[in-house]
Parts: sequence; structure tokens; C-alpha cells
Amino acid sequence: MIPRIRLRRLIREALEEDIGSGDVTTLAVLTGDETGTAEANAKEDIIVAGIGIFREVFLHSDNDIQFVPERKDGQSVNKSGIIAHISGKLASILSAERVALNIFQRMCGIATLTKKYVDAISGTKAKILDTRKTMPGLRAFDKYAVKIGGGYNHRMGLYGGVLIKDNHISAAGGIVNAVTRALNNIPPALKIEVEVKNLTEVEEALSAGADIIMLDNMNTDDMKQAVSLIDGKALIEASGGVTLSNVRDFAETGVDFISIGAITHSAPAADISLNIVSR
Amino acid sequence: MIPRIRLRRLIREALEEDIGSGDVTTLAVLTGDETGTAEANAKEDIIVAGIGIFREVFLHSDNDIQFVPERKDGQSVNKSGIIAHISGKLASILSAERVALNIFQRMCGIATLTKKYVDAISGTKAKILDTRKTMPGLRAFDKYAVKIGGGYNHRMGLYGGVLIKDNHISAAGGIVNAVTRALNNIPPALKIEVEVKNLTEVEEALSAGADIIMLDNMNTDDMKQAVSLIDGKALIEASGGVTLSNVRDFAETGVDFISIGAITHSAPAADISLNIVSR
Amino acid sequence: MIPRIRLRRLIREALEEDIGSGDVTTLAVLTGDETGTAEANAKEDIIVAGIGIFREVFLHSDNDIQFVPERKDGQSVNKSGIIAHISGKLASILSAERVALNIFQRMCGIATLTKKYVDAISGTKAKILDTRKTMPGLRAFDKYAVKIGGGYNHRMGLYGGVLIKDNHISAAGGIVNAVTRALNNIPPALKIEVEVKNLTEVEEALSAGADIIMLDNMNTDDMKQAVSLIDGKALIEASGGVTLSNVRDFAETGVDFISIGAITHSAPAADISLNIVSR
Amino acid sequence: MIPRIRLRRLIREALEEDIGSGDVTTLAVLTGDETGTAEANAKEDIIVAGIGIFREVFLHSDNDIQFVPERKDGQSVNKSGIIAHISGKLASILSAERVALNIFQRMCGIATLTKKYVDAISGTKAKILDTRKTMPGLRAFDKYAVKIGGGYNHRMGLYGGVLIKDNHISAAGGIVNAVTRALNNIPPALKIEVEVKNLTEVEEALSAGADIIMLDNMNTDDMKQAVSLIDGKALIEASGGVTLSNVRDFAETGVDFISIGAITHSAPAADISLNIVSR
Amino acid sequence: MIPRIRLRRLIREALEEDIGSGDVTTLAVLTGDETGTAEANAKEDIIVAGIGIFREVFLHSDNDIQFVPERKDGQSVNKSGIIAHISGKLASILSAERVALNIFQRMCGIATLTKKYVDAISGTKAKILDTRKTMPGLRAFDKYAVKIGGGYNHRMGLYGGVLIKDNHISAAGGIVNAVTRALNNIPPALKIEVEVKNLTEVEEALSAGADIIMLDNMNTDDMKQAVSLIDGKALIEASGGVTLSNVRDFAETGVDFISIGAITHSAPAADISLNIVSR
Amino acid sequence: MIPRIRLRRLIREALEEDIGSGDVTTLAVLTGDETGTAEANAKEDIIVAGIGIFREVFLHSDNDIQFVPERKDGQSVNKSGIIAHISGKLASILSAERVALNIFQRMCGIATLTKKYVDAISGTKAKILDTRKTMPGLRAFDKYAVKIGGGYNHRMGLYGGVLIKDNHISAAGGIVNAVTRALNNIPPALKIEVEVKNLTEVEEALSAGADIIMLDNMNTDDMKQAVSLIDGKALIEASGGVTLSNVRDFAETGVDFISIGAITHSAPAADISLNIVSR
Repeated sequence: MIPRIRLRRLIREALEEDIGSGDVTTLAVLTGDETGTAEANAKEDIIVAGIGIFREVFLHSDNDIQFVPERKDGQSVNKSGIIAHISGKLASILSAERVALNIFQRMCGIATLTKKYVDAISGTKAKILDTRKTMPGLRAFDKYAVKIGGGYNHRMGLYGGVLIKDNHISAAGGIVNAVTRALNNIPPALKIEVEVKNLTEVEEALSAGADIIMLDNMNTDDMKQAVSLIDGKALIEASGGVTLSNVRDFAETGVDFISIGAITHSAPAADISLNIVSR
Repeated sequence: MIPRIRLRRLIREALEEDIGSGDVTTLAVLTGDETGTAEANAKEDIIVAGIGIFREVFLHSDNDIQFVPERKDGQSVNKSGIIAHISGKLASILSAERVALNIFQRMCGIATLTKKYVDAISGTKAKILDTRKTMPGLRAFDKYAVKIGGGYNHRMGLYGGVLIKDNHISAAGGIVNAVTRALNNIPPALKIEVEVKNLTEVEEALSAGADIIMLDNMNTDDMKQAVSLIDGKALIEASGGVTLSNVRDFAETGVDFISIGAITHSAPAADISLNIVSR
Repeated sequence: MIPRIRLRRLIREALEEDIGSGDVTTLAVLTGDETGTAEANAKEDIIVAGIGIFREVFLHSDNDIQFVPERKDGQSVNKSGIIAHISGKLASILSAERVALNIFQRMCGIATLTKKYVDAISGTKAKILDTRKTMPGLRAFDKYAVKIGGGYNHRMGLYGGVLIKDNHISAAGGIVNAVTRALNNIPPALKIEVEVKNLTEVEEALSAGADIIMLDNMNTDDMKQAVSLIDGKALIEASGGVTLSNVRDFAETGVDFISIGAITHSAPAADISLNIVSR
Repeated sequence: MIPRIRLRRLIREALEEDIGSGDVTTLAVLTGDETGTAEANAKEDIIVAGIGIFREVFLHSDNDIQFVPERKDGQSVNKSGIIAHISGKLASILSAERVALNIFQRMCGIATLTKKYVDAISGTKAKILDTRKTMPGLRAFDKYAVKIGGGYNHRMGLYGGVLIKDNHISAAGGIVNAVTRALNNIPPALKIEVEVKNLTEVEEALSAGADIIMLDNMNTDDMKQAVSLIDGKALIEASGGVTLSNVRDFAETGVDFISIGAITHSAPAADISLNIVSR
Repeated sequence: MIPRIRLRRLIREALEEDIGSGDVTTLAVLTGDETGTAEANAKEDIIVAGIGIFREVFLHSDNDIQFVPERKDGQSVNKSGIIAHISGKLASILSAERVALNIFQRMCGIATLTKKYVDAISGTKAKILDTRKTMPGLRAFDKYAVKIGGGYNHRMGLYGGVLIKDNHISAAGGIVNAVTRALNNIPPALKIEVEVKNLTEVEEALSAGADIIMLDNMNTDDMKQAVSLIDGKALIEASGGVTLSNVRDFAETGVDFISIGAITHSAPAADISLNIVSR
Repeated sequence: MIPRIRLRRLIREALEEDIGSGDVTTLAVLTGDETGTAEANAKEDIIVAGIGIFREVFLHSDNDIQFVPERKDGQSVNKSGIIAHISGKLASILSAERVALNIFQRMCGIATLTKKYVDAISGTKAKILDTRKTMPGLRAFDKYAVKIGGGYNHRMGLYGGVLIKDNHISAAGGIVNAVTRALNNIPPALKIEVEVKNLTEVEEALSAGADIIMLDNMNTDDMKQAVSLIDGKALIEASGGVTLSNVRDFAETGVDFISIGAITHSAPAADISLNIVSR
């Protein structure tokens, strides 16, 4: 799902960043001929995301490594559970270990956090959306992990969707002007989303022809009124100040989407370790 | 402090990742001639890190942007405080905003979290160290932010230091063998660090000639005994299970360094926003 | 409008492709100190597109070149008209000339051809759209030239819009299934376009919820019926077999868009020459 | 014949340009498991060029695709003829289709047009030459297609041959000076070609020691006289204003080469389509 | 031992540098179907270094080439001895030959020269060290060859070790200040080396806490005194003016390391040729 | 004369290779604010080559550095002579010093050695030619230095000239076949050179139409006979076993060119040092 060219570039650059002119410890201490098997273990309950990428890092380092996964993307592992077995030359495994874990722990961390939000609103019609608040260079990976966690992807970048924010609106002299300009200029394949702050702006956006209306930092009472006002004539996204405690309240207002920057900009890494279990 | 070539590559790749074939919203809604001034505001108390890089992203997007910082790296800003003023073409500012914030919020986030650990052990001789648990592609940036927060950098990658871990030890048939091999093979410029799990291994590492001994997941009682045993003959690093609540206990055992993966792998983004304040 | 990073990469790669290990003629025959002025002249009536890029190639080769344009993008030049004056070191001008012209002649060629289609349907509500049938590596340039010629851009790539073609439909087991799957899986920012071959499929697409319906290779009678059937409930794009002779007939059926691959895949280069006029 | 490194770079960049952050349609509508066979069909009479590159694009996208060609480079296909069968995962085939066709249609288009010129002068000793008027980034591909169409390659870039044009001549103060300087400075492996406008210049170039004389925009009477004058002491290239109607007249003057920019800068894409024929 | 990513980049860039737009001779003179076997022969006595890289160049050019080595890295070959047999398509072998030899001859040249220095000091405890005086872009290769020749690697780059030279010392206001600053700022994994010119500076460096002391351009009498003074409290490196005639005198002073720039900046290429022996 | 794109890439890659994650010594020991002036001094008599590139490395590292050259390319400097003054931030100068010297010392080394060969044959008509035996990645730099030393460049790569060697000849079934094939297939801009071993082959090559004949490893008596035989009908290159002692004998046989691999594959670095002279 992540384009192969991006995947390979990330792995290549991350390995080069870490290994640089060589893994001096492994080169000095191992002969290079030692073989063995390592296990990747969860050290807390997590949702697996990026198992194929985790595998790919080891193979990029050494084509002869055997990688046997115990889980697929989207499955959960409990604390102490085994995620994968990795066999082959220990020097290859040890040199790739940290890069492989850095990528994989981030992806599992995002999926695990996303899943908590998704579970928190289960039974409502709302969907959890990500944002563009991702790590520089890792957007494809961050957004893939969101999907694995049960979330949905908002636009992949500035190129992939029209979102008219308050600054655009003021620059254009109001919502109607901004939407009208957009209707004349954007590729027909894209919808138009407008960020609004209050019910007056909701009405303006609706009448201007917005396809999606984003309610920014509104309280849930106003959200409910906005949902009534819009009445199915546009999709509705709620944004701003979402936490695990209040996300269900947001969902129950009847909005279509709830977008959350924290699932990518502040997700803690999932706790996963790699241990040599036999030699 | 971050090599200029790496800085420019990150900015170029991050802008390309976000802008791709073009910022369709800005191109559609703005004429391109609108000018104005934006402010970057802290939305919580933070330590500033990466202000020069934040500036550089805007300049990469448009050389004519004026960037006036209110803070230097390492200074604090309180909630609602202004960090910088950015003036110029609004189209340029809006197209670069998200990438600039993504990088800057991460760096401030790391510095702010690091500072909390550093403050927690003030008055002890211990230093906070980072690890290689950084974002793929962002290591130079993550580690720079740690320094700004008052921490110290452990090795920059596998190329930049010898750290003999349990897996290397078992592959080499024991600590003495592993250290002896390392002494024979590594560049003379590098010290040798050995990871140990208990006091017996501390003694082995010491007699084998380790320059630094890393106490991995030991309790503070054992750490104190290790400090006595080593008695200045090697530097001592404590690692594993460090939190803001227990870090002072660690420091008071007398170790030289405490390394913490979480300051880079799980630092939440600092909350910073950009607002157009005049046009 | 073309992202600066892409612009500079194209210029760098094109210059390297042409100059390689060096311009042996210029190095051998000129001393390097000769200066003078060249003129870029139209050798047929054309629409100018890419004048800024044309300039940029010379400046990339030599920062001290003076480039004075006589036209802006979108303006016309008649046969023999002057497009720009280029002054500076002759060695720099001559080494960059062919690359500069190759890019510029293509862009003007596309804009000139597009303009002919746009003029042919003037007075109707239809818009000319481009396709993804562009030169590998030059899409941003080809599509920019289409806009300059008065056309509109369809999606920039597979990432930038959903277009469900006959093959997708058959793979998914029919239009309804295909559209339903798309509705569940795509980013909310994107509309859904469906390619149809006949009026039955038009109805299916409409009821499935398509935002845009592409009439593929239909005759104008069927197109008119499709327009009636759809009746404003979706946008309509006509595609296939469009020529300068029949494009107006297409437009007069009432469709919203007419897409034409030939304006990019088969546009002849505009005839432009560069002549040293003084030394 | 096209260096492998360039081939792979073009394919990688073209796929990235088109697919970007992902083929949203295929990802949304297909499950990814559908398999089937597609046919590439000629929709007009064409000369095949680049069949191996066409295949390579699909394999780059998915190594498991089966590609069975019906034609080799240089062979003709009639309208409706099958060029190749492509089997495998439909998602892989559909995501690579447009890029594969964009490259292949251009190459076949160039070869087909070149072949028309070659056929038009059959029986004469003249050879059709290409120029440096190629698509930026595609020169190796454009020039390979010319050879497949029966043409010959002029220099590959400014690095690969000495061609002293009118501007070089005036900068050097005359033909004799220019050629003399070149004789002293160029690598011995390269011949010297001089562009001339009339018979006086032909004599100058000849006496100065030119290896090849290019007759620029001369009429056929003057060309014949130039051929007599030169009398085998240099190779002769005719250039400028060549069309399918007059190319035979040019050839019959006795020149060795006729160079034509249009076969690369203005060749229309060959009409080729890809259709899923079984699933 | 050379990171695989660097190895492949060097080979790709070197092949592109040499082959560029194509090997015109091989393409013109061979049909492409000729097969045969070539031998790589030593034309003088050499130490083999880089045999795996030599092989890799041919395989990068053509995966079907068979490469059978007669020697491993570190083994010697006498004049006329066979180093390897290379079989496959002659066009592939001939196009890769020069690049393969250029890399391999340099590496063998360095290893052969290094070995002479290593042999000259056999029986002493001193080790031969390289420097950063390597070919731009080839450091990993140059330093690998030094190890194969029996030498040891000093730091791989400015990132990999602290070496305080006279300029740093004067900038910091003396040795003590410079070392003190370094102790406070460098990563704990790195030792501190200080360059000194006389015995007074030796004492300063020692008392300041230097881990390694580099005696720069001292005579052997002073070196002996320095060895006495230091008395095992720091490692000692001798540097400057080392030749094959005086290196043993240096070694016999009791220093730990002797560093020699000439083994990389001035090593002559080993004389090796490639000959087709059967077709 | 070296294309700017290649120059900047080499400098960027060489700086990144050396500095990597940062110059730990300079960062630790200097405050970054110290300024001063350094001198580049010759430590032996040399020919300067690459002074502009030497300057460019410092400017790439820090745009504010002042670089004042005392010599131009091609001029000589005696032992202890000053080549250039470099002023600015000491941290910038020290971090760039080694890379700048590595490139510059190699280029001066090549020019100095070439000049010795050129002087050795002064008064004869022969010219010194280089070969493709250059450092991988540095060909443009190596060949530029040869020209500065008074030599001439043979082809820049396999793309830039036809040289039919013994292996091509045997693959093609003899000299006549090989040359005939080449005449039919190569771009008209290129001459044909044939390598021969004896006088019989000289005659074959001449009658086949070779433009240049390379006498490989012939003794001077045979060379003289070859010169008589050829009698101006082709250019003549002597190759193989050339030393400073015998090069004049080669030249006096009357050949046009003498090619020498050693001037690039085995040139020792010129001895140049950089010293801070004021602060």
C-alpha cells in the first residue's frame, strides 16, 4: 500500500544514517560467521503495523535472512507475545536491528493509539481521520499505520485535496469568494473543504458550495447545531482539542469525521524488543 | 551544529513530500500577490529548539520572506508567548507552514521533555544521554534537540562508538573475549562500552578493560554497588526503565550518565501554532 | 506554479544530459571571454508558456546572464516576433541554448495547441481537460502549459483523483460494487469519477453515487442523452476521438469537460530560434 | 543499447511521478488479489521500438508479472495487431499501465515517423540523422527509437562531437580561425563539423580542414554544387526545412546525411491501448 | 566490511561516469552475442584487496557473468599470476573492464604499499595507521584496503574521533583549555587525541587528560623521551615524514601507532591487466 | 571547464563523506566565533591546478570565507611559496581544510607530473595524452589537471570515442571486419582508432580506414617504421611502458600522441599544507 519506491528509499536512507561508515562494534567483536535466531517481542499490548516493512529492513541488510512473522498488520499482540522470528547471520541481524525497530515501533505505536480512538467511538457513524502533522519523510508510513489502526486518511499532502482555512478565507476576502475561486481553479477530481469557526460560517460555506465543512474547535453543542443545519448537504469533519476522553462526545454529535493530529505527531513508540534466542 | 548538507536535504525532501505536484488550495484561492505577517505562538510552556531550521524552511520556500525570531535555541517560552514573526507573500508562508511546524514542533517537543529530565537530576553529577532510538531520517535533528534541552549525545550511529551488548557478548563467548577482540580491531579514537546485567558482569567488564560500563535494567541498590566496585576506573551509564519519577534515584546512585530512549522515540510534539496577524 | 524543487531538478538533469563531460565545441572554439546578446524569435504564431523556465535554464548555466522577456506566459507572439533578449558570456548562452529551447518549445507547443481547442469551443460552457498522457518526467511542465493555453488540469497523477475505468469495474464486479468500495476507502477529499460506455452505465454510475461521469468514446447523440439523464446530478466529461474538427460538436452536447490526450502526447514543438544579434 | 542505469532511473522517476503517494483508485476498488491478462494492441500501423523497456516498467512495478511479446524492436504491427500479452495481478498491471504506455508510445511514435523518412529516400546513399532536439531527460530513449526506425544518431550531447555553428564562427572571427582553434583543442577522437550557409563558406570550411560540412537551409541546387565542390574530401550533412515531401530531393543531391529535428521534437505518440482480456 | 549501500553507489556512479550515453565501440563492433572468458593477471607482485568489489562491478553490468576468483583479500599474487577468471558476454565484460580495474588496481595498490610498511616494522609493537588523506568519494575503499594490507584505520571522518590539532589549540588558548572543553562537549564514546610538537606539550597534554598523544614531526630521540614521559598513561601516535627507510626507527622508539598519509594519497595503482583468453 | 553540476556534486559528496554527522573536534573545542587567516603553502615545487575548486570547497562550507589566490591554474610555485590566503571563521576553515586539500593536492599532483612528461618531449611534435585510468568519480578533475599540466585529453569515457582494441578485433574476426562494422554503426562525429601490435596490423588498420592508429607496446624501431608506413594517412598514438626516461625516444619516432596511464592512476599527491597565520 506504501509505494515500493518510497519504502526502499526510506530503508536505504535510515540504514545509511545509522550504519554510516560501518557498524564498528559488530565488525570488531563478531567474526561475521555466527548465525542464530532472534525473536521480536511485544513488551506491552499493541496493534501490529508495518510487519512487512520490518521484514524488509532485515532483507535489505542481508538477503539470506529468514523472517517468519507471527502476526499480520492489524492484529493485536499481548505483552510478551512473539511478533516474528528472524534467523540468519547475527552480524546482519544486529546491524539492522535498531533501524528496523525504530520504524516498526513508530508504526505500531501509531496504529495502537489510533485503535484506541476508533474503539472509543464504536457504534457511531463517525470515522477517525489523520492530518498532515506527520514526521518529515515518514508521511506514507504514518498514514499507513493510521489505516491499520482503523482510522482513515485525510489528504496525503497539499497536492491531494483542497482545504480552505481561515487564512485562505481572509486572504480571499470571505468564504464565498474563496470557494468561488476554488471552484474555478481546482482539478475537477478534488472536493472542496472549508474550515469554519461558528454557525454563521457554516451557513456561508454551505451556500458557497463546500463539499466538506470542517468544524474547528467548536463545542459539542454548536457541533450538533451545525449537523442539523448542514443536514446531509455536505460532509462534516470535527477538529481540534480531541482526546480519548471527549472523542465519543464529538462522535455522538453526528459528524462524519473526527481528525486528530496527536495520533501521528505525538504517538509514543510501541515497546518492542529483539532478543537472540538461539545460536 | 547540524551539518548544512543534511539540513537542506531534510527541508527539500519534507517540502516535496507535502507539496508534491503543488499546493492546490493556495494556488486556487490566493492570487499569489497577497502579503502579510504571521506569528508563531506557543500554546503551552516550551523550550525552543530548531528556530534556525524553522526559519530555513520558510526561506527555502521563498527567499524574500522576513523571519524575526523572539527566542534563541534553549530559551523558554510560556503559553501564548510569541516565538517568531514571519512576513512576506502569504502564499509562500501558507505553503511552507505545515512542514516548518512539523519539524519545529518535534524539536521543541524533544528539548522540552529532555529539559524536564535534566531539571529532575539537577545538583547531581549525572548527565542525561540520548540513544539511537530516533526517527528514521531525523537523527541529527533529534540529537541536536536533546543537546538544546540540556542533555548529551551518545554515539550518532553504529559508526560512532563501540557498545558491546549482551548479544555481542554471547556471540563472542563472554565479556573478556568480546572486549579483547574489540581492543584489537577498533579505531584507536573510540572508547569501548560494555553492557552488563549484574555485578559479576561489572567485574568482568572492568578487568577486561572497558572504558564505559552500561548498567542495564539494574535496580538502584545494585547500581550503588556497581559504582563502588568500579570506583572511577570506568565511566558508568545507567539505562532502562527510566521515568521522570525515578530518574533522580538513578542519578543519586553516583552514575555518570543516564540514557533515555523516550526523549526521542516518544516525545510528544510541542504545541505551536501559526496565525496570520496582519495583511 | 510548478513547484520550485521540480523545476530545478529538471533543469539540472537536462543540462547534465546535454553537456555531460563538457561542451567540447564551445570550449575549443571560444576563449570564454566573448560577450554578446541573443534574441529568441518565434518562427510561427505561438502562445508563450514557460518563459520563466526558459530564463531559469540560462541562469542555472551562468548567474550573470541578463534575460529580458518581451512576453509573459499566455501572451501570443506572431511569426518573427521577439520573445526575449539574452545577454552575457556567449559561451554560457551557447552551452545552455539547446536545453532551454527544448523545454520552452515543448511548453509553447502544448499551450499553442491547447489554445486552438479552447478557441474552438468558445461560447460553450465546456472546458478542455488534459490527461495523464504526458512525457515521463515532464508532467508538471506539460500540465502547466495546458493551463497557460486555457485548458484545465485533470488529476496530476494516480494519487490525485479517483477514476474508475472499465477494468476496475470488471475487476470489482460492476459499477455499483466498484463505486461502493471506493466510497468506503478513498480519502474524503477526493471525488469519484466513473468511466461509462453507454446510457445504461450512465444510469448505474449515477445511482451508485459517482461525482463525475466520463463518457468514453460515445457519439454526440448519446452524449446529449447522457446529459439529459444526468441532469446536473454529476459533472460530465467527454473523452475519446476528439479532434479540432469535432470538438465543438462535443462541447455543444452540454458536457462540462472534454479531455484530450493529444494536447500533451502529440503536441509538435513550437518553432523558436535563438540568434546572436550583437557582440 | 540504452545504458541500464539510465533505463532504471527513468522508469523509477516516471513511476514515482505518476503514482506518488499511491494509486488511490486501484487501492480503493480492487482487493489486490485479482489476476488476469491484458493485451497491448496497435490502433494504427506502427514500428515497434522499446518493447524491452515497456516490459521493464511492468516488472519494476511487480516482479511476478508475465510479459510475452509478439514483436521485437524494429518490426511492424498493423492496426489492431497484438504487440504483447501481460499477465499477473491486475492491481500491478493497472498501476503501471499509463507510465508504460507513455514511454512506449513515444518510442514507437519516433520510430514510425523515422521509418517514413528512411523509406522516402530508399535507394539513395543518404542516411537520416537525428538532432539534439529531444525531450529533456529522454534523449537516450528518443535516439534509440531513431535507430530502430532506421535512422542514425548524430552526437548524443554537447560532449560527444564538435559542431561549429554560425555563432561559434562569428565569435572566433571566421571559419578558418574557428576550425584551427578546434584542431588544437579537441580530443583527437572527435571529428570537426562546420555549419555553412553558402558555397563560399563551403570552400572555407573545406580548406580549413573540416571533417564534416553541414549545409544549413540551402536549396537543392546549391546543395548539388556543394557536393561537387567537396568531392569526397569531407562528409556532407543537409539540415533545415526537411519534410516528407522534399526529403527525397535532398537525398538525391548526393549528400551523406539529412538531419531532421522533427522526428524527435514533434513526433506524435503511436496509438496503442491496453485491454484486460481475461480474468 | 564496506557498507553495501556505499559499495553499490560507487559502482553505479563509476560505471555511469565511464559509459555515459553508451560504449560506442562495443556497440558498433560487437554483435552483443559473443561470449568468452577473460583472465585478470598481476603484472607485478601485489597484495589482493577488493576482489569482491572487482567481481561486483562485472555483475552490476551483467548479472549473468561468471566470476571465479583465484585469490582472497589479503593474499599475495606474484607477477603473471592469475587473480580471477571472468566469463560471459564479451560486450558486458569489455564495457565494465576499465571501471572494475580502476577500482581494483587502486585498492590493491594501497594494500601492497601498506604491507611494505607493516613488514618493515614487524616484531615491534607499533601499528601502521592511515589518515583522512584519501581520495574524495573513496574513503571507505581506501581505508578497507589499508586494513587488508595489515594496517589499522584511524578515524573514518571528522565525525568519528576527536583530534585536537595545533590550530584548535591556539584557537582555544592552549592545550589545557582545549582538552577541558572537549571533555565537556564530546560524546562519551570518543577518546581525545592531542597533537603535540615537543616534550613540553607532551606533558601538558598528559596532565590535561588526553587519551592519545600524537607526536607531530618529532625526531626519534624526542620520541623516545616522549615515550618515557608518557609511560603508558596515554596511547602514542607518531606522524609526519615517515618513509619506508625510516619507519622502523620510528617503531623502535616504542610508540603505539605510526600514521602515514602516503599509503592513501600517493599509492601507485597496482599493475593488473585483463585479457580475453578464450571465445 | 569542469561542468559546474559535477563540480558541486563532488564537493558536496566529499564534504559529507568527511564531516558526516559533524566535526566533533571543532564543535567541541571552538566556540564558533573565532576568526583568522590561513595560508596554503607548497612544500615542494609544483604546478597549480584546481585553484578555483580549492576555493569552492571553502565557500561551500561557509559563504563568508575570503579566498585570495596567489596563483592561477598552470602557474608554478616553488617550495614554501604561498598559493592562497583564506580568511574567515576558523571553525569553517578547519572543517573544510582536509577535503579542500585532498582534491587540490591530487589535481596539482597530476598537473605537476604531466608537466614533467611534457617538458621531456619539448621541441618534438608529439603531445602527451591521458587515458581512462582515472579515479572513479574524479575523471573530470583528473583530466582537467592533465590539460593544466600541458597534456591533452583522450576520450572522456566509453561514450566519447571509438577505440577498437585487440579484444574487439578478435571478437569481430579481424581488423578489417571490426573497422567496417564501426564505420557503419558509429555516430558520424566520431573518429575510429585502432590498437595494433605490429607492422602487419598497421597496414591492415590503414587500409581498413582507421583515422587513428595506436601502436601498443611497440619498440621505437618498429614505431619509426610504422610512422613511415602510415605517412600522414592517419594520426598515430604510442602507448605502453612509457617512463620519464624513455618518453623522448618515443616522441622522436615521429608519433603524434603518447598516452600515459600513470599520470592519473599513479600520480603522487602534491605536498601542500594549510597553516593558520593570524587570529
